[in-house]
Amino acid sequence: MNAMRPTHVTLVDVGPRDGLQNEAQPVPAATKIKLVHRLQAAGLKHIEVTSFVSPKWVPQMADNAEVMAGIARPPGVRHSVLTPNMKGFEGALAAGADEVVIFAAASEAFSQRNINCSIAESIERFRPVAEAARAHGLRVRAAVSCALGCPYQGEVGTDAVVDVAQRLLDIGAHHIGIADTIGVGTAGRVSAVMEATLKHVPLAELSGHFHDTYGQALTNIHACLQLGIHTFDASVAGLGGCPYAKGATGNVATEDVVYLLHGLGIHTGIDLDALVDAGAFISGALGRKPVSRVANALLAKRTTH
Amino acid sequence: MNAMRPTHVTLVDVGPRDGLQNEAQPVPAATKIKLVHRLQAAGLKHIEVTSFVSPKWVPQMADNAEVMAGIARPPGVRHSVLTPNMKGFEGALAAGADEVVIFAAASEAFSQRNINCSIAESIERFRPVAEAARAHGLRVRAAVSCALGCPYQGEVGTDAVVDVAQRLLDIGAHHIGIADTIGVGTAGRVSAVMEATLKHVPLAELSGHFHDTYGQALTNIHACLQLGIHTFDASVAGLGGCPYAKGATGNVATEDVVYLLHGLGIHTGIDLDALVDAGAFISGALGRKPVSRVANALLAKRTTH
Repeated sequence: MNAMRPTHVTLVDVGPRDGLQNEAQPVPAATKIKLVHRLQAAGLKHIEVTSFVSPKWVPQMADNAEVMAGIARPPGVRHSVLTPNMKGFEGALAAGADEVVIFAAASEAFSQRNINCSIAESIERFRPVAEAARAHGLRVRAAVSCALGCPYQGEVGTDAVVDVAQRLLDIGAHHIGIADTIGVGTAGRVSAVMEATLKHVPLAELSGHFHDTYGQALTNIHACLQLGIHTFDASVAGLGGCPYAKGATGNVATEDVVYLLHGLGIHTGIDLDALVDAGAFISGALGRKPVSRVANALLAKRTTH
Repeated sequence: MNAMRPTHVTLVDVGPRDGLQNEAQPVPAATKIKLVHRLQAAGLKHIEVTSFVSPKWVPQMADNAEVMAGIARPPGVRHSVLTPNMKGFEGALAAGADEVVIFAAASEAFSQRNINCSIAESIERFRPVAEAARAHGLRVRAAVSCALGCPYQGEVGTDAVVDVAQRLLDIGAHHIGIADTIGVGTAGRVSAVMEATLKHVPLAELSGHFHDTYGQALTNIHACLQLGIHTFDASVAGLGGCPYAKGATGNVATEDVVYLLHGLGIHTGIDLDALVDAGAFISGALGRKPVSRVANALLAKRTTH
């Protein structure tokens, strides 16, 4: 049954970007830099660091260049940044990012309400970004958001997801991430969407991005592992949230994913204790507990021993 | 891959017993009775109602006879009670329970520290209870606790779990529940333990009982479904905890399991909205929020629509 299960999984920690951009109070650049360093010390090899987007829209990421300039860049660690347009790409290029992240929704209703254009238009807008990135030797990571459900239209068809993934490949994406932005998906739907997408995207360039709003993220990852998928986004301490779903929790906690994977005998290259330290550090800076069952269970054990 | 996945799953809500016995302040009998009624209204067909144990040891369950006398007993709903000894069995019989619950640890260290005797001795003590239950036509449900790990000895071998399960069958148990008492198990270990136990216990009489301490409960259930296992314990609103693991969360929330199962197209006979109501009722009575991601996400949605 588990013949396809991978022996090694790469986790992309999106906490510094997807997590911290949802904080009401912007986090100081020095804290973000320390967080990236702690993630690197824990063994993370791929980190989504920041977003090169207008500070008018996302003031939390206004320090993008400062953060990129401040982080150590050890060999073998890939640093990605979100780039919504050519201005963002120029910032990313100047900052020496390894990879740019672009995105499109699989839901027409979400695309219209979130960025005020059709899905097709949104993808066309990314074409020059992807072309410029390739011309400069940067990787292009593309996310398909609302792939398992939409806060406005509800269900999202598998065909719509596959169509958006193919269009993103067509404009030059190297990698496709399937994102359950509002965390509503369950394992059966996730398997179906991933199986369909795998007909268009190579296994090594397909990843899953799951929010834990309905507690399904780990189970969805478990379903993906059974298809051989071996790259997942996660966010240390479960940083993040979704502005479109009240009460929504953030991304699945990296700690919880690592615990699952190590329990399955799958290598990640990550030291769970050091990762828990990184999560405790940023949670402390934010004045709250980690949103990670594993982190809280292990932190509680530390205080009793 | 999912050829064995069941089409219908029976959930046993253990919240009124396993959940509420961990409350520092005993919950009034009238509240417990209302909770059972709300669970029945939501479609639960199997409920662990209370424990016939000395009130000296578990004052939270001192109202066992009152609760059993106070609940409606619709046909088709099975009401179980925990019975640690013959005195407890007599109380259960007088109260008209359908099923008695007995238990043994798969960890020698846990058995010694928790009930001050060996595993073998603990099982022998249940022999008269099981015999009396069978003689009176009651079902005997047996739980193997610490089956995925022990707070004292750490790892627990598969052989130890299978051995305890077989001994419990030998003294007359109809049903075996494999319990991850401290919530440390991951999907690979769970599959291995369940596969080994299935060589001794029929599929229809094997269940899983998972705590969500490390966030793994749903993934463990997902792994069990792939073996065809179709009975699971869960606790509405995630009631409960584990006195042996500081910071431990309780049983997996019934709401979260129902969301997973319905998402997989598996029938439960449970109305999720009515179940969320039941969880909100008891959480309100306890003065806190449900420990269920699904319940909190759905309750947040209700307030915005």
